[in-house]
Amino acid sequence: MESIKDRFIRIRKYSEALVKPIITEDFSVQPVAFVSPPKWHLAHITWFWEQFVLLVYKNGYKVYNDDFSYLFNSYYNNIGKRVFRPNRGLMTRPSVAEVFAYRAYVDEQMNELLSQPVSHEALQIIEIGINHEEQHQELLAYDIKFILGHQPTFPVYADRFTLKPITAPQKFIPVSEGIYEIGSDGKSFCFDNELGKHKVYINEFEIAANPVSNGEYLEFINAGGYSNFNYWHDDGWHWVNNNKITAPLYWHLIEGKWHEYDLHGLQELNLNEPVKHISFYEAFAFAEWKGMRLPTEFEWEVASAHFQWGQLWEWTNSAYLPYPGFNKAPGALGEYNGKFMVNTMVMRGASVVTPLNHSRNTYRNFFHPDMRWMYGGIRLVK
Amino acid sequence: MESIKDRFIRIRKYSEALVKPIITEDFSVQPVAFVSPPKWHLAHITWFWEQFVLLVYKNGYKVYNDDFSYLFNSYYNNIGKRVFRPNRGLMTRPSVAEVFAYRAYVDEQMNELLSQPVSHEALQIIEIGINHEEQHQELLAYDIKFILGHQPTFPVYADRFTLKPITAPQKFIPVSEGIYEIGSDGKSFCFDNELGKHKVYINEFEIAANPVSNGEYLEFINAGGYSNFNYWHDDGWHWVNNNKITAPLYWHLIEGKWHEYDLHGLQELNLNEPVKHISFYEAFAFAEWKGMRLPTEFEWEVASAHFQWGQLWEWTNSAYLPYPGFNKAPGALGEYNGKFMVNTMVMRGASVVTPLNHSRNTYRNFFHPDMRWMYGGIRLVK
Amino acid sequence: MESIKDRFIRIRKYSEALVKPIITEDFSVQPVAFVSPPKWHLAHITWFWEQFVLLVYKNGYKVYNDDFSYLFNSYYNNIGKRVFRPNRGLMTRPSVAEVFAYRAYVDEQMNELLSQPVSHEALQIIEIGINHEEQHQELLAYDIKFILGHQPTFPVYADRFTLKPITAPQKFIPVSEGIYEIGSDGKSFCFDNELGKHKVYINEFEIAANPVSNGEYLEFINAGGYSNFNYWHDDGWHWVNNNKITAPLYWHLIEGKWHEYDLHGLQELNLNEPVKHISFYEAFAFAEWKGMRLPTEFEWEVASAHFQWGQLWEWTNSAYLPYPGFNKAPGALGEYNGKFMVNTMVMRGASVVTPLNHSRNTYRNFFHPDMRWMYGGIRLVK
Amino acid sequence: MESIKDRFIRIRKYSEALVKPIITEDFSVQPVAFVSPPKWHLAHITWFWEQFVLLVYKNGYKVYNDDFSYLFNSYYNNIGKRVFRPNRGLMTRPSVAEVFAYRAYVDEQMNELLSQPVSHEALQIIEIGINHEEQHQELLAYDIKFILGHQPTFPVYADRFTLKPITAPQKFIPVSEGIYEIGSDGKSFCFDNELGKHKVYINEFEIAANPVSNGEYLEFINAGGYSNFNYWHDDGWHWVNNNKITAPLYWHLIEGKWHEYDLHGLQELNLNEPVKHISFYEAFAFAEWKGMRLPTEFEWEVASAHFQWGQLWEWTNSAYLPYPGFNKAPGALGEYNGKFMVNTMVMRGASVVTPLNHSRNTYRNFFHPDMRWMYGGIRLVK
Repeated sequence: MESIKDRFIRIRKYSEALVKPIITEDFSVQPVAFVSPPKWHLAHITWFWEQFVLLVYKNGYKVYNDDFSYLFNSYYNNIGKRVFRPNRGLMTRPSVAEVFAYRAYVDEQMNELLSQPVSHEALQIIEIGINHEEQHQELLAYDIKFILGHQPTFPVYADRFTLKPITAPQKFIPVSEGIYEIGSDGKSFCFDNELGKHKVYINEFEIAANPVSNGEYLEFINAGGYSNFNYWHDDGWHWVNNNKITAPLYWHLIEGKWHEYDLHGLQELNLNEPVKHISFYEAFAFAEWKGMRLPTEFEWEVASAHFQWGQLWEWTNSAYLPYPGFNKAPGALGEYNGKFMVNTMVMRGASVVTPLNHSRNTYRNFFHPDMRWMYGGIRLVK
Repeated sequence: MESIKDRFIRIRKYSEALVKPIITEDFSVQPVAFVSPPKWHLAHITWFWEQFVLLVYKNGYKVYNDDFSYLFNSYYNNIGKRVFRPNRGLMTRPSVAEVFAYRAYVDEQMNELLSQPVSHEALQIIEIGINHEEQHQELLAYDIKFILGHQPTFPVYADRFTLKPITAPQKFIPVSEGIYEIGSDGKSFCFDNELGKHKVYINEFEIAANPVSNGEYLEFINAGGYSNFNYWHDDGWHWVNNNKITAPLYWHLIEGKWHEYDLHGLQELNLNEPVKHISFYEAFAFAEWKGMRLPTEFEWEVASAHFQWGQLWEWTNSAYLPYPGFNKAPGALGEYNGKFMVNTMVMRGASVVTPLNHSRNTYRNFFHPDMRWMYGGIRLVK
Repeated sequence: MESIKDRFIRIRKYSEALVKPIITEDFSVQPVAFVSPPKWHLAHITWFWEQFVLLVYKNGYKVYNDDFSYLFNSYYNNIGKRVFRPNRGLMTRPSVAEVFAYRAYVDEQMNELLSQPVSHEALQIIEIGINHEEQHQELLAYDIKFILGHQPTFPVYADRFTLKPITAPQKFIPVSEGIYEIGSDGKSFCFDNELGKHKVYINEFEIAANPVSNGEYLEFINAGGYSNFNYWHDDGWHWVNNNKITAPLYWHLIEGKWHEYDLHGLQELNLNEPVKHISFYEAFAFAEWKGMRLPTEFEWEVASAHFQWGQLWEWTNSAYLPYPGFNKAPGALGEYNGKFMVNTMVMRGASVVTPLNHSRNTYRNFFHPDMRWMYGGIRLVK
Repeated sequence: MESIKDRFIRIRKYSEALVKPIITEDFSVQPVAFVSPPKWHLAHITWFWEQFVLLVYKNGYKVYNDDFSYLFNSYYNNIGKRVFRPNRGLMTRPSVAEVFAYRAYVDEQMNELLSQPVSHEALQIIEIGINHEEQHQELLAYDIKFILGHQPTFPVYADRFTLKPITAPQKFIPVSEGIYEIGSDGKSFCFDNELGKHKVYINEFEIAANPVSNGEYLEFINAGGYSNFNYWHDDGWHWVNNNKITAPLYWHLIEGKWHEYDLHGLQELNLNEPVKHISFYEAFAFAEWKGMRLPTEFEWEVASAHFQWGQLWEWTNSAYLPYPGFNKAPGALGEYNGKFMVNTMVMRGASVVTPLNHSRNTYRNFFHPDMRWMYGGIRLVK
């Protein structure tokens, strides 16, 4: 089995591999408040190691730069001041080179720490740190795509992270009524929001074996789906109109033909690929138009053994709420999940940009219902 | 038993009784987007009868004024254009007198209709109409309070709608684990969102017999509850800071003493009354501070037989989502509930301004988590 | 000659005559921040008499209601707190009736005061008070028009305040180069901003005898004037696009025909009337399109003896700035004019809603360049 | 005398010298809408040469990259689409390196063009191009300072552009009443807004020999200048309160001591240096507090022979308006000045970051009254 040290090194290298294809100029911008500059991600996940592992578990650890705690804290209000989120894109300093130097320093220190036996408590935080860095790797992919996808010249990132087209015809898998157990038993790593394995009573339902394709979504568009309020939530309808939404993010109608910007460049729309980069509002409206609905997160978890998943996060019609017995961790790490349990909807599954081994069927991802820059799609229930 | 005609007349009269204490000037203003002018309510509920009952079921019915359909539609997008909500407060015309004339005309026509036997289908719509008017009666009370409560002179409405102080000491009622049936069986009137009686698995819990009092809430304030982000949702923390919230709505600190504006005027804060006019964010933060939590709507419904309720709507930690098998009604009435099932939280119970007989323990009220102008309070679970 | 007492009574009565045609509901709304509720005007101008005359010059004067000083102060920061301007429309109390009672009380007290000889100093303040009330009478007309003109039903105010059509053909009046004297010598009443009669050197120019007509303005619209940035200031172009401006305020294209809402109702556009309710931005763009320009306020003053004016205020291309030697009065009255001398443009002349005897050719009116609800038009220079 | 070619090369090199001290990451950000990324400036001034000189006067000129015309147009609406100003900071591509390559290409082409005799007409455009590039050099300095000055770490740019302290005691220079000639006769280069030498009648006044110092401005702050509305324009007072302004831009109160960020780093405030980075609103309020006033632009021009100027642009109390006979150039170059002649105030003089030889006493600079990031100060008149 991979040692914790080897695993740490592998994860850290992967973060840097992810930014190889971009240029220095791409590292510091923040086109919208919810997108963070890639430089910020690289530094923030490094700061996390420094703050929660090295400062606590490594004797005599010397902080790399006192300012960085202020600059690269994200939302941990418990750890002093932080740079207000929409202002991250103003930070041209420290330079990309200096952030890499910071990473190297912290990696070396971690290396030293991990060359010795570490306590169980430390191992638990390191496990969280690894999962935290993997989460930011996924966000890095979203944010890089957003930054490149908003250049007037649509630069190519790399020929990676492509989705497999849907080849099998759609079919619906029946699941029978009854009591099911939901959540993680905590034997392998999971976040606090998955804990509290508990019973849920579920009525019978049928769930689609395939996600919705670009072709099917295009039918919704062509049927006037974006201009018929009957399919939309009230908040969704305001969102569509205030933002003049007419298609998924990254779709462009060029001389009468739909194109999609993807990390491998601007291409003609592939009708057989799963539709992606849609908001919860759009997923819901599509389902309404189709006369079906989205699964709850419980239905999804129960049925997940019966279909393929992992190309795209899948919107559920479940609000992100605590499981019975949910308890926040004390201190800064307790801010991780619980405080987002309002106004957000659960996504289940994983996506092509999810790091390897960072997925499981109890994983509860969550976003505000208007977010689209993540790799998210639709699976229907009837 | 009260005939449908007598019931109709009684409900219609009550709407007018509610506005007796206010003056013509109070009828047309809209201080904020979510508050509607009282005149608008009176006309809108009248338009509902015209649109959904008289035009459909009364032969040769002549519309009172063609413009009114446009002016007094609320959110029924299916029925043509409507006045954009934040602009309702600009409508000085028609006058209050003309709105009363409109009411008289429609009442007379309804009277005629109800003096004959009516079809079962019509009766169902009339039942909805009555419940719709009762809902607006409750909103009328909220809106009148908001309008008067924002006058620099704090005028008295009437010596009505006062809350009973809490006299019994707090105790917690245990409920045992198991499968429970939730929702209405539809045998007596309910809204579509209550239908679909279904099984829910609930873990054991204990629920407070009394709501939280002003005195307890004041402790939270004095303990710095509004300035410690650890108690708050992330969205709630932004809400507190962006709006500089430091106390429930209608609380005023005057020369060092807390006062509360109520419909019977500005008074010194009664520490024994249940705390009211708080947002979901505040209810949640209070519970966090207390080391407890809010009930889910299912827990509330199951436990409701064991405590007194009905003075204040009670925040639950359940997002407002469809029950299994939820189906929107076709047409305009289908817009009634389903389209609000995102970004809103469920309140259960009833309040002192809820019309008589308009409450039941399956009733699902819902509001965005930042709303405070309704009569809402807190019941804790541990 | 009219005594000061008679003049006072006449002016006060005229304010009340102006609001005769409107209904109670019209008195309290504030559709946009720059429009004040008619009730507020009636009370504010009354408060002015109380604050600056009665309290100072009438022995033992008893204030009608202490709250009113707070409620009806406008922008006199020196006199304590005031209701923040955009919130005036929330004030349903005091009622219209009470405001009229307040007026009656103050009028009676003024009557008493003016039945005795008054000091020269008091007379000067009374003169300002009369002119102040007359200014608000003009604003009352603007605001009433705005309130009625934004009712979906376009109610008629009265068959008054109509503009005379232009009958004479356009001609241009030459004015020769030289030194001219500008401003008031202060022998008859004027505001502080007109004082400081001073020499200005003016180059020769020719000014139009007639204002621009609706017909001419329509040509500008039909020539695409609103969509060609070349005619517009940069700020004006943003204003046009942000507000989707395509015609003067109160113009409505109904079934292919241009109509104009006026105080006598919605009518088909009269091509021969002077164009009105346009912003400075529009006046400037029109002149650019025409290959001409707007006069400076100095040119206007010098030329005013040679043409008819008084139906509409006329935009000049002069920013509102102090005359040489301009001095603010000490105290609250000093806030009257000087503090608006930035970002505003001068209008000269008078309008059909200007009270009789409230006009002179040295009068400097001023507005932000995007304002349109006043009676303003265009006179060209070449 | 310097040949046009040598001058062109010198100016172009200076633009690149200006950005030597900054790093790649600094080139692409846009912290606020009115600040442009340095990369954008470098490309835009290059595009100007391509668009207005090479494409017109160089036979067979081949555009470097078709996209650049779209990307680097600034406000010339006449030349096709342009990147909406607040989005310039999203453009990470083209890279800084590519922009330098673009510059090199255009420089080479210009070199070729200028190695031949050029027409008088071309020379005139080249003169404009040089002055245009010089203007952007000044803006580059402002924008670089803004970007660096908003880094939490306050990086040093270089030990340049420092202001000389004021050593001489203040004295006031009298100017006598009479007719003066204002504006440029056009014999040497000037912008269109300076043309139209014309007579102006000026009253006698006295103007300060020295600008206002940091020390004097600090007295204003300590006297409560920012919290007394009597000194402020109405718009200025709103600006102060909405933006919570309490000191000039780049001033920081650190542990009780005032510091100022300057291009040579964060330093303790030098009380003898002229105060800089203040808005028109602040300049005006300071003068009011002092019981004096700002000069008009005419007074400034007439008096400028009698005092030292050129360290800071100086606010005048003149709105930026056309001189008699002002004519916009036809086509895109006509957009240069005229369209900003509303809502802006004139500044006269020059600053330490103004390129050599780019100053003259007829120069009319202009900014909206809330702008502070330029090098601007105060000279008083009494």
